[in-house]
Amino acid sequence: MNIKVIIAGPRGKMGSEAVNMVYHEANFELVACIDRKNNGKQVKDIEGLPDIEIPIFDNPNECFQNVNADVFVDLTIPEIGFEHTKLALQYNIRPVIGTTGFTKDQITELTYLSNDKQIGCLIAPNFAIGAVLMMQFAQMAAKFFPDVEIIEKHHDQKLDAPSGTAIKTAELIMDTRNAKNQGHPEEKETLQGARGANIDGMRIHSMRLPGLVAHQEVAFGSSGQTLTIKHDSYNRQSFMEGIKFAIEEVMLLKGLIYGLENILLNK
Amino acid sequence: MNIKVIIAGPRGKMGSEAVNMVYHEANFELVACIDRKNNGKQVKDIEGLPDIEIPIFDNPNECFQNVNADVFVDLTIPEIGFEHTKLALQYNIRPVIGTTGFTKDQITELTYLSNDKQIGCLIAPNFAIGAVLMMQFAQMAAKFFPDVEIIEKHHDQKLDAPSGTAIKTAELIMDTRNAKNQGHPEEKETLQGARGANIDGMRIHSMRLPGLVAHQEVAFGSSGQTLTIKHDSYNRQSFMEGIKFAIEEVMLLKGLIYGLENILLNK
Amino acid sequence: MNIKVIIAGPRGKMGSEAVNMVYHEANFELVACIDRKNNGKQVKDIEGLPDIEIPIFDNPNECFQNVNADVFVDLTIPEIGFEHTKLALQYNIRPVIGTTGFTKDQITELTYLSNDKQIGCLIAPNFAIGAVLMMQFAQMAAKFFPDVEIIEKHHDQKLDAPSGTAIKTAELIMDTRNAKNQGHPEEKETLQGARGANIDGMRIHSMRLPGLVAHQEVAFGSSGQTLTIKHDSYNRQSFMEGIKFAIEEVMLLKGLIYGLENILLNK
Amino acid sequence: MNIKVIIAGPRGKMGSEAVNMVYHEANFELVACIDRKNNGKQVKDIEGLPDIEIPIFDNPNECFQNVNADVFVDLTIPEIGFEHTKLALQYNIRPVIGTTGFTKDQITELTYLSNDKQIGCLIAPNFAIGAVLMMQFAQMAAKFFPDVEIIEKHHDQKLDAPSGTAIKTAELIMDTRNAKNQGHPEEKETLQGARGANIDGMRIHSMRLPGLVAHQEVAFGSSGQTLTIKHDSYNRQSFMEGIKFAIEEVMLLKGLIYGLENILLNK
Repeated sequence: MNIKVIIAGPRGKMGSEAVNMVYHEANFELVACIDRKNNGKQVKDIEGLPDIEIPIFDNPNECFQNVNADVFVDLTIPEIGFEHTKLALQYNIRPVIGTTGFTKDQITELTYLSNDKQIGCLIAPNFAIGAVLMMQFAQMAAKFFPDVEIIEKHHDQKLDAPSGTAIKTAELIMDTRNAKNQGHPEEKETLQGARGANIDGMRIHSMRLPGLVAHQEVAFGSSGQTLTIKHDSYNRQSFMEGIKFAIEEVMLLKGLIYGLENILLNK
Repeated sequence: MNIKVIIAGPRGKMGSEAVNMVYHEANFELVACIDRKNNGKQVKDIEGLPDIEIPIFDNPNECFQNVNADVFVDLTIPEIGFEHTKLALQYNIRPVIGTTGFTKDQITELTYLSNDKQIGCLIAPNFAIGAVLMMQFAQMAAKFFPDVEIIEKHHDQKLDAPSGTAIKTAELIMDTRNAKNQGHPEEKETLQGARGANIDGMRIHSMRLPGLVAHQEVAFGSSGQTLTIKHDSYNRQSFMEGIKFAIEEVMLLKGLIYGLENILLNK
Repeated sequence: MNIKVIIAGPRGKMGSEAVNMVYHEANFELVACIDRKNNGKQVKDIEGLPDIEIPIFDNPNECFQNVNADVFVDLTIPEIGFEHTKLALQYNIRPVIGTTGFTKDQITELTYLSNDKQIGCLIAPNFAIGAVLMMQFAQMAAKFFPDVEIIEKHHDQKLDAPSGTAIKTAELIMDTRNAKNQGHPEEKETLQGARGANIDGMRIHSMRLPGLVAHQEVAFGSSGQTLTIKHDSYNRQSFMEGIKFAIEEVMLLKGLIYGLENILLNK
Repeated sequence: MNIKVIIAGPRGKMGSEAVNMVYHEANFELVACIDRKNNGKQVKDIEGLPDIEIPIFDNPNECFQNVNADVFVDLTIPEIGFEHTKLALQYNIRPVIGTTGFTKDQITELTYLSNDKQIGCLIAPNFAIGAVLMMQFAQMAAKFFPDVEIIEKHHDQKLDAPSGTAIKTAELIMDTRNAKNQGHPEEKETLQGARGANIDGMRIHSMRLPGLVAHQEVAFGSSGQTLTIKHDSYNRQSFMEGIKFAIEEVMLLKGLIYGLENILLNK
């Protein structure tokens, strides 16, 4: 039996790829889209989407009321996403949400709601399974290797350094490693910045070059050995694998899970 | 309070480094050595060992009877090691054994003995913590990434290809991944061997170059991303860290543990 | 003063990107296209091409006769490309050709023609400057490091192993290194194929994983050190940089050059 | 016919390995050592050196006068090395000197002396052939790839960052690349130092971890591709290969060469 899916945000980059993924996946069935701009139209009317007659609603309430669905995937923005998610839970449709933008209070409210209804809800700040595993493995390794540096490498159009993933990785590592100020106590930078950014005694280095996409290495060292965990992201396809996985997994849940890692490592 | 340690095999490469490590570690105390060749001598009489007056026994029975010890580290050969280990357990001295050579029956016997006595016993085929973590992470990742290849790189004096660690890694991966014959179904080798060794549909590649020491990469791929776990071993110091860790951990055990991974991932 | 460019094959993947690149490059001016299918139309009439009124010819003779151009870029197939190239030279338009398909006789004929006319002609089997440099550096390093292995990594839809670039690299290395049968003389494969493909005593390993694009490492080893040259190709943009470079360089030539490396390393 | 070699500084780390290398190399013959501390003794009298009866002199003048030699290898300190080198040239013994410490005036004087005598003299600030090639290749590649970052990785006992090799590499690159301030013009460090050290618009990152030895990557990027040149140094054996090479090459020279690269790339 197919999993019936509603997608919100079908015109965005992530959204349009998700529509295509769900459409092509054998066990999934796209049953509706939510888009504030194209009420009453069909998926086939939007450029870049598959040539199929699937209804588009601008009103999520109307959508959830009229369409029989198992899973609701939200690829809009956090402000809208929260209301969508609450509403979907009220209609017993399982939400899959990819956002870092919910507040603690919002997550608490959604947790209460989904646990109360015994219905799955999956919030994933990062849908790239490989990136999530990299961070989890790094957190585990840090228990045994307190010396660690992170190199993240991105295209030179990126504005911020370090990347959000690098900072998130460092924070996860801080939870498990024994705090340590790395490097030689008397080390000196003859050129300022050479040793990278210091976060809790760890170092993060941000490389920016045209040609690069999104890459990160977490390198651990101890006497006589190094252990390196590396993730390379080449395009958005990596997120589609994660969304597919999330749709399948949310069907098995009886409450809210925050972070793909909490499913991945219990499997 | 210091952990009192007896070491068997102090003249070997691993043994002599272990003697030095235990001697220099603040929380450890070397109390005796077992060596079939130097009965009655002292550690300081053997070249390359620290200048300390610690007795050497050729008879393990006599050693365990006369010397008050917490942990017994065996760095001899499996044939001798098994008898040493049994004897140590009888004297309530916790064994730390680095060998792949014990039979299933031998391990069953030692398990029974140590559980019965409620005394720790740690058998570790690989003391390099980084290598053990690499294998464990690879096994976890394989659940989500059925496409995986292993490249192991060693100096060109190595006789066998692939390495034991590469085969062990592949076997661990086979436990968790969905079996798959990787690559394109119609792929062709225009030069035989290009695609490496086939083990359960996975591929292993063995690089041999002068200058290399012992390195392994496990590379996973799926749409739009790759995840790589890499271990580099530069010298035997990596094993000393593992032995040190094992000595500390065996003190906390109430029975036999086979494989460092079973301690590492429960911490 | 702008360089006026004619492009043959504007509908192909490479061709359409080249049309866009030439159109956007400040110092280039697209003056015509040659396409056997769209005679009399304009560039703007073809989907995916820029919205500009540039004439398309199906007859190259007519094109070269009517359009004043400096450089002719051919991105069709070798059979057609050869005639195009000869014709362009006759009209004193400098050809830039990306093909491995010309015969020795054809290259000899084109060399004679361009030298005779003192007009530049550039034939480049590989437009990725980084890949060309990787091969050249590998050839240079092989003089000093006879021990070398090649790992090439591609997506798992690739049919042949090893890649053409890997074989080309090995051939270039064979020109400079002292022949050597690498590895230990008594090394044994416990799993067949582990040591990769043997070409003149060197080893080539072909990794195939979903997610990968096109990557190659050439690794050299000698006592105590390794030297690695690595090229990663993420998309066709890398070829566009090479075509741009070739258009600029062919203006400076007075005869035929085969292979981008012969320009790169004399600069 | 063997090359007869005198070595100055046989007690140092480099010196003692060089004595052993020359002693074991089939085409070389160790004929004397210069050491200010062991005048009148023999090589076999010094701990760690081979058990051979080769004379040691504290006075270089006396050594060069009494011993028939082809090549003089100096592994002492620059202050002493300069006088040794001048003296060797006066006795027609070809100097091989591994130092960065000579002044411009000193090099000019030695150049004049060796050219005048038509006798080889080789001054090599870096004997690791792989490192020298890495720097040369980086310099060549920078002509075509103005976007470049350097990551150097060393053990955490190193005091200075960046390494001398990284700075030397950046200086060589500055000679050939078009100056460019890399990264996005509006990029921001949310953690100071993330983007590394800025040298002429390039970035250098210094990683320090226990376990690491001495490693450097030079990464170039342009649209759709990256090119990386990497050198890994595992131990001093890499320098011995360079000294061996230098001894052979200095025999063929008729004057002074500064830097191994000037021999390597003309071969």
